[in-house]
Amino acid sequence: MATAGKVIKCKAAVAWEAGKPLSMEEVEVAPPQAMEVRVKILFTSLCHTDVYFWEAKGQTPVFPRIFGHEAGGIVESVGEGVTDVAPGDHVLPVFTGECKECAHCKSAESNMCDLLRINTDRGVMIGDGKSRFSINGKPIYHFVGTSTFSEYTVMHVGCVAKINPEAPLDKVCVLSCGISTGLGASINVAKPPKGSTVAIFGLGAVGLAAAEGARIAGASRIIGIDLNPNRFEEARKFGCTEFVNPKDHKKPVQEVLAEMTNGGVDRSVECTGNINAMIQAFECVHDGWGVAVLVGVPHKDAEFKTHPMNFLNERTLKGTFFGNFKPRTDLPNVVELYMKKELELEKFITHTVTFSEINHAFDLMAKGEGIRCIIRMEN
Amino acid sequence: MATAGKVIKCKAAVAWEAGKPLSMEEVEVAPPQAMEVRVKILFTSLCHTDVYFWEAKGQTPVFPRIFGHEAGGIVESVGEGVTDVAPGDHVLPVFTGECKECAHCKSAESNMCDLLRINTDRGVMIGDGKSRFSINGKPIYHFVGTSTFSEYTVMHVGCVAKINPEAPLDKVCVLSCGISTGLGASINVAKPPKGSTVAIFGLGAVGLAAAEGARIAGASRIIGIDLNPNRFEEARKFGCTEFVNPKDHKKPVQEVLAEMTNGGVDRSVECTGNINAMIQAFECVHDGWGVAVLVGVPHKDAEFKTHPMNFLNERTLKGTFFGNFKPRTDLPNVVELYMKKELELEKFITHTVTFSEINHAFDLMAKGEGIRCIIRMEN
Repeated sequence: MATAGKVIKCKAAVAWEAGKPLSMEEVEVAPPQAMEVRVKILFTSLCHTDVYFWEAKGQTPVFPRIFGHEAGGIVESVGEGVTDVAPGDHVLPVFTGECKECAHCKSAESNMCDLLRINTDRGVMIGDGKSRFSINGKPIYHFVGTSTFSEYTVMHVGCVAKINPEAPLDKVCVLSCGISTGLGASINVAKPPKGSTVAIFGLGAVGLAAAEGARIAGASRIIGIDLNPNRFEEARKFGCTEFVNPKDHKKPVQEVLAEMTNGGVDRSVECTGNINAMIQAFECVHDGWGVAVLVGVPHKDAEFKTHPMNFLNERTLKGTFFGNFKPRTDLPNVVELYMKKELELEKFITHTVTFSEINHAFDLMAKGEGIRCIIRMEN
Repeated sequence: MATAGKVIKCKAAVAWEAGKPLSMEEVEVAPPQAMEVRVKILFTSLCHTDVYFWEAKGQTPVFPRIFGHEAGGIVESVGEGVTDVAPGDHVLPVFTGECKECAHCKSAESNMCDLLRINTDRGVMIGDGKSRFSINGKPIYHFVGTSTFSEYTVMHVGCVAKINPEAPLDKVCVLSCGISTGLGASINVAKPPKGSTVAIFGLGAVGLAAAEGARIAGASRIIGIDLNPNRFEEARKFGCTEFVNPKDHKKPVQEVLAEMTNGGVDRSVECTGNINAMIQAFECVHDGWGVAVLVGVPHKDAEFKTHPMNFLNERTLKGTFFGNFKPRTDLPNVVELYMKKELELEKFITHTVTFSEINHAFDLMAKGEGIRCIIRMEN
């Protein structure tokens, strides 16, 4: 490529301050260094995690910064030592990585790579501690190693998953984060048996993906729990068969669910991050065999509390990170699930905007409208 | 049998009052009713649970009562409808049952039978709500459906496991409760992979059995944690390779274990019932793949507390009841493990007394001496 080894000037949506609208700027993107790749982003989408760190309420503020971590793109050039991907490859960036060499990567069970595990405070590349983005020589910081709100970005090779080039990037880009997180929580962790009953706490993008996972796994009853009844009709498309709004009941929701299911659900997946919902999601599973899975990220001061007899009565509580998918190893297979039409992605995509309209995607999320808004980098 | 259908007069150790020495009495044991069996007990042993309900501190006092639930015996006669066992069969009584018909019995995962699940408040048979023991016509209550501190006892057929008649009852009787509980917690629930590291909290009979289970499963490091260093030497016989006395450290024990194991143990098994040990046992497992198993019975007001990120970092917490063994289905196989010399039981048996010396077994337990004391019913 003519641009390989050179600085690329391109458009990026820069967050100069916490909570302020992003500003479209021309940035300079340095060439990828050892074990890095530079990717041309074609489609990106907005996830709650971007908003959470952009608001930076109680989080370490790292500004100016380029957010974005759900995306699809094409490799423009690669740095020294990169052999797994080459210019032209279609890739999904991932906010957490897979070095393939640490104890976690070598474990069949974990995806929490020691080297490339998500670090929301770091705004630089791990190789040399520097940013690859700059404006007039002043660094603009990275976000979770991806920074996809830029026409070009630089990532560690361990944070990009090479996928089938036939897959439409404007659809599969949503597999970079939230959708895979919910889907994996169900199919990799909760593993509902065929014909089982599953409760899904929170019917946002992650919860709907968890419902979709339960549907794919063959659950016969999928009970959606949300405080917002507007979500219920939409959730039917994702396999939800019944709904509980905790506001409609005087009893704790775990008692409501126990009554609906002859003692408890077989599996539950918690996708809100609210500590009370976490406790409810655990206590609503059936004794003897119930498994609850925590997905939502809690407040830093949250405390999970329950009577230990709830465990001794043979309930299991697990947590998951990115749905237990190993980014490089597993995401290509999730893309294939979509290609085989076993996984439906279109229904997650409710809005599309151009890159210059990116702040509109933030507005939609703030209003709780829609599920995923795709941002097209090229108009 | 000449005694079938008749009342049997025999010796039993009766607890007339909470915490008072048992009194050797002649009791009348009524014939078994529908779905019941009458068993001649040959060997019984003392478990903490007997002592706990005999002390009746904070428990519902049910007196006069015949305690005892770890035992081995021979079926004397059976009631109407009993087809699974016959007079002469060698059996182990179990404090919890397996009806083989409820949702739990039909589940491959649960052993918490709806019909015959342990009920420590009930002092009568479930069939007719009456006791089968009496003295001068006044009822003496049962304990957890077994009451093995009697030469003869009556049990629901779902609470007796028919075993290989070649197995020595004076050894395999310890499989009725504590030893199976700890063993099963390791081999059925924690399932340590070969070469893994396992922490065992509490080195009493159940904890030592959990260590034995980890040894059988092929764990290469088994770390025993106990406040009593006298237990450490004994514990080596059960596979423990290292020891931690929390009193020797200023740091929380989960930090001590993390330092010893490069981030955490692969599996932990909690066998004390102390709520702090439960929290430590959970927090000491490695992120990404660690599994903690709770076995010890907590105080009724205990509260399990932890930061939910400990779950989200891919740790699993499970509880188990009777080591997840289904009494009738699985105990015969555990006896076979002993017969094949894969499981060693002799090392659990540190004392033997005659039936008339039963209060001595209580004294030994009060002093924390030994592991299991076998009570021989026949002198």
